[in-house]
Amino acid sequence: MTTTVLLVLDLVGAFAFALNGALTALRATRLDIVGVVTLGMITALGGGTIRDVFLDALPPATFLDWRYLAVAAGGGLIAFFAWTHLERINGTINVLDAAGLSLFAVTGALKAVDLGFGPAQAVIVGAITGVGGGTLRDVLVRQVPSVLSSGLYAVPALVGATAVVVADLLDIRTAVTTVGAAALCFAIRMVGVHFDVHAPFPPGTRRPEEQ
Amino acid sequence: MTTTVLLVLDLVGAFAFALNGALTALRATRLDIVGVVTLGMITALGGGTIRDVFLDALPPATFLDWRYLAVAAGGGLIAFFAWTHLERINGTINVLDAAGLSLFAVTGALKAVDLGFGPAQAVIVGAITGVGGGTLRDVLVRQVPSVLSSGLYAVPALVGATAVVVADLLDIRTAVTTVGAAALCFAIRMVGVHFDVHAPFPPGTRRPEEQ
Amino acid sequence: MTTTVLLVLDLVGAFAFALNGALTALRATRLDIVGVVTLGMITALGGGTIRDVFLDALPPATFLDWRYLAVAAGGGLIAFFAWTHLERINGTINVLDAAGLSLFAVTGALKAVDLGFGPAQAVIVGAITGVGGGTLRDVLVRQVPSVLSSGLYAVPALVGATAVVVADLLDIRTAVTTVGAAALCFAIRMVGVHFDVHAPFPPGTRRPEEQ
Repeated sequence: MTTTVLLVLDLVGAFAFALNGALTALRATRLDIVGVVTLGMITALGGGTIRDVFLDALPPATFLDWRYLAVAAGGGLIAFFAWTHLERINGTINVLDAAGLSLFAVTGALKAVDLGFGPAQAVIVGAITGVGGGTLRDVLVRQVPSVLSSGLYAVPALVGATAVVVADLLDIRTAVTTVGAAALCFAIRMVGVHFDVHAPFPPGTRRPEEQ
Repeated sequence: MTTTVLLVLDLVGAFAFALNGALTALRATRLDIVGVVTLGMITALGGGTIRDVFLDALPPATFLDWRYLAVAAGGGLIAFFAWTHLERINGTINVLDAAGLSLFAVTGALKAVDLGFGPAQAVIVGAITGVGGGTLRDVLVRQVPSVLSSGLYAVPALVGATAVVVADLLDIRTAVTTVGAAALCFAIRMVGVHFDVHAPFPPGTRRPEEQ
Repeated sequence: MTTTVLLVLDLVGAFAFALNGALTALRATRLDIVGVVTLGMITALGGGTIRDVFLDALPPATFLDWRYLAVAAGGGLIAFFAWTHLERINGTINVLDAAGLSLFAVTGALKAVDLGFGPAQAVIVGAITGVGGGTLRDVLVRQVPSVLSSGLYAVPALVGATAVVVADLLDIRTAVTTVGAAALCFAIRMVGVHFDVHAPFPPGTRRPEEQ
């Protein structure tokens, strides 16, 4: 698989997160265009920046490569001007978040593999890349981060990252298996959102909705 | 322009942010001297530390060079002991924040230029340096960060950083143009604070005060 | 003193913080097993990761070395399944926090010394290592961080870090002096918790409980 495929998936992930971050800004609190685009860019570029710190791949690609900056800013601007249309589509914000999560989990893991990190490290860094931007987003708008409040947020990221790392070990890493791993992560995340699936709650407690 | 000028501007910026961060701590929530000085130091040194991660200039200068630590701690202590006097001066906290923002935007951008980064990257890293410390401050005291809630916060930082980068490209980078760029950033920020100027709000909504 | 002693102390600190972070998650907000373990791991590994960024020791040891990941995940899982027992022991959460703070303050400072940093830098980085994980934990569950709200949180970390750095300068750095420095930090922290000791409040104000 060429580097181009990875770059394209990474940019699509950044675009999805930029739309999602900007829509979160528009919903969570009354922000003007600069605030909306800024939150979109932080959501889009945060995961990749944290990834590059962990991989010692500094300065971060998200900042050196103008394409990341352009895609992140563009996504934020589009969300700002089209938000009444985007909001009409049911669940847009969750779909975009799941897309960014899935794509970043696989590209983050593969970047780690390509830099020579071991399988366990690659899976961990993939998951961190996937959840990183959304966590910064939630902290900045003062919500409990999805990675803590939703069991099926870190888990699909770990599954997607594991899938591409295993594919790499089995020497069947292609554009198809990479996109397939992202699709698997996306599907698990969307099932979790749709059916409100949770990982087990602590023993001796009940699920919130049962109380 | 000598490195000394940059260092002096950077230290003055750190001092302004240390006073500002400590005053924010005194206002936002009841903290003792250690909490006040700590928030002052995080505000003073946060932007430069993030800058050095982005520029791969690690370990960060804010931590290696004792002068940054001394200025940051000193600013926090002065604010702690003189806060009843400082609070009496109208708008102190906003003036200090704008001063730190302006100085860090230009010094951050010039540090990037001096390390060989391109003009676009230098402008971005200048803006990140300017807004970084205040964003950490706001997250720690659980406020929506200024960089999101106020349109004229990121914009003046981008303008100031662009001005010094252009001056460098035109070979007219002197202490005067550098301080001038910081003054330009400062003026735009203070106009924004004074007249409560905002960047445009999303289409189909009204400004909060019109509702 | 061998590197093994430092590693053991570092892992014990990570384990204490993992239990503490997971218990905080169980208390602060209703999280499922993934959220609980995630907050435990962030609390356990956050301080060391920030330390390694400051020391330019990237990629961070907390992520490269599987023992840190295993200890952090294990601590989170144990807290999840045993939390009703752990909660019955009075003050568990504070004791674990103080243990992590103390151990990380001394191991962080000694790692800096071993990498050739000066005494002042070593003390600062030790304190940052000690308070880092707990600060991330508090931000993620939307509490004012202990390092700001409690005067005797940063201070014992600075004392413990100073003690090991001085021991190193005096050439009496042994396992005993290192554990002794951690015990000193722990004792000061627990006295602060027990008697609700604060550093001085700003002049012209009264302590909250006197109002």
